[in-house]
Amino acid sequence: MSQSINIALIGATGNVGEALVELLEERDFPVKDLHLLASSESAGQSLSFRGRQVRVRSLEAFDFTQVQLAFFAAGAEVTRAYHETVLAAGCSLIDLSSALPLEQAPCVLPELGIEGLPALAKPWKVSAPTPSAVACALVLATLKPLLQPQQLQLTAMLSMSTLGRSGVQELARQTAELLNARPLEPKGVDRQVAFNVLAQVGAVDEQGHAELERRLAAEIRQLLGLPALSVAATCALVPVFFGDSLALSVQGDADIDITAVQQLLDGAQGIELVEAGDYPTAVGDAVGQDQVYVGRVRAGISDPRQLNLWIASDNVRKGAALNAVQIAELLIKHYL
Amino acid sequence: MSQSINIALIGATGNVGEALVELLEERDFPVKDLHLLASSESAGQSLSFRGRQVRVRSLEAFDFTQVQLAFFAAGAEVTRAYHETVLAAGCSLIDLSSALPLEQAPCVLPELGIEGLPALAKPWKVSAPTPSAVACALVLATLKPLLQPQQLQLTAMLSMSTLGRSGVQELARQTAELLNARPLEPKGVDRQVAFNVLAQVGAVDEQGHAELERRLAAEIRQLLGLPALSVAATCALVPVFFGDSLALSVQGDADIDITAVQQLLDGAQGIELVEAGDYPTAVGDAVGQDQVYVGRVRAGISDPRQLNLWIASDNVRKGAALNAVQIAELLIKHYL
Repeated sequence: MSQSINIALIGATGNVGEALVELLEERDFPVKDLHLLASSESAGQSLSFRGRQVRVRSLEAFDFTQVQLAFFAAGAEVTRAYHETVLAAGCSLIDLSSALPLEQAPCVLPELGIEGLPALAKPWKVSAPTPSAVACALVLATLKPLLQPQQLQLTAMLSMSTLGRSGVQELARQTAELLNARPLEPKGVDRQVAFNVLAQVGAVDEQGHAELERRLAAEIRQLLGLPALSVAATCALVPVFFGDSLALSVQGDADIDITAVQQLLDGAQGIELVEAGDYPTAVGDAVGQDQVYVGRVRAGISDPRQLNLWIASDNVRKGAALNAVQIAELLIKHYL
Repeated sequence: MSQSINIALIGATGNVGEALVELLEERDFPVKDLHLLASSESAGQSLSFRGRQVRVRSLEAFDFTQVQLAFFAAGAEVTRAYHETVLAAGCSLIDLSSALPLEQAPCVLPELGIEGLPALAKPWKVSAPTPSAVACALVLATLKPLLQPQQLQLTAMLSMSTLGRSGVQELARQTAELLNARPLEPKGVDRQVAFNVLAQVGAVDEQGHAELERRLAAEIRQLLGLPALSVAATCALVPVFFGDSLALSVQGDADIDITAVQQLLDGAQGIELVEAGDYPTAVGDAVGQDQVYVGRVRAGISDPRQLNLWIASDNVRKGAALNAVQIAELLIKHYL
């Protein structure tokens, strides 16, 4: 990481984009020039980086031969529309939008290093996993010496920032309307989310799974190197602004030693274990933090081969922006 | 149900107590005299029943020989303190507070009839199952012809009314404080619940399970007549006033025919199946309704022997008060 590189950040005005800019500065990332890009509607705004204001420019006209690495932090359509242009310009990319198939752009968990990854040819493209996959894979990878998972069950209670800034604004708007006893007209989501729980994120396919649920399952399997692992995922939206809450059950192939699980989690890189009896929450613990918080570590009520956990994680920071910057730090050491 | 009976309602001023009074009237329950009881602090209030105001009296001084049936809808401590007095007076009881062991007071799901119940001697005591157990057992009993469950995984996203009226008030208070940017001091719950998710309800035991989680598992096993069924339950509190959202996974012993599952659920007594692609929510569908709403019916992403469902249910009405009145209707036909 001795040499500084030029970076393009696509989707600079979104929640994750802003967090990326902050983290590139905070972590003293070797950026030479930072190019902030967005759709032409958002272009013209400015963000602060290393004490100066950087103007957000239009993505359409940008020449990617000027940069070595691009972060895609806008919507999946933007990645789909521009990733080939970026690669054709010789620029590598990290996709935070889950737009690219994992076979083409493998997902990376920085804590696991590059050992499990296929060799990357320049310019490379990799996927930053979805926030819940980051949290689950980090915990399960930590437990790998102890526990070969046979089956995962995940209920992900996702915050409204999963939908980007508009999701956060919609929760605030709906909550205020309801508290002021005004009639509610949902925008952006299809029904009341304030003081309610929505059972799915986006549309579902013919089998009833949301794209996010399938992606999450595929990412966890790839990150753990367990292509046959059975994963059941339900992703719901809860009336929370930031931070995800995950109820995770792991079926092992033998009785699980809960004390040993706690010892492995306690002090593992990127994980903060909350003491037994207490529990972490998204807002009270995880939001604004780099670690993933784990609590409620217990066996099944009647099944000693089962491990149940509660995970709270900042979906914007560790789940997305920090993880992507850590991916960049890892990969430019080896591949740039 | 030809003969009218005298009834005592303990905990008349709570959420569930008020719903019970409404339902006894709505369903034209054969009540002769209705005695509303509460702690001495709440005594003195009045509730409307059949067009007149009924005064809430103090539980301490009440003579239970005047009544044939008592509903316990106050806290578990109240049931523990008074149930023996009630039975000694020859009065049968339905406990809505989960205070009595299931071996002593079996739980009843009215839709299943009395066939699975042990014979009850007068005065009898039965438990009204916890709201999530009602919803899950109703769905699973409907699916019994098709599916022998081997294992259940339940993530219950419970509304704040689970904690009674104080829980509802605390969510309203915290939400208003936060929207007005005032400092938050949690009361009744131990941390911020507005715009957050709490990973457990009440304290946990040495194995890490909350009492509610163990109770729920035991109730589902008893109601389904499957004492060895493996049940994993995580009960969390979400910032919702009324209505529970349940993510339920059922592991079967053979591939599950999803179309047949939908056909069984569609039109089953007490169940409303939401069409594929759509999904039910607690607030948008279930609250105020007598049915349990089911949606997101699907197999596992990679496991055809797994069934995943989303259930939304009114925890105060079908989950507690209506179910208890239906229990009373069923049992007084046979046992009073």
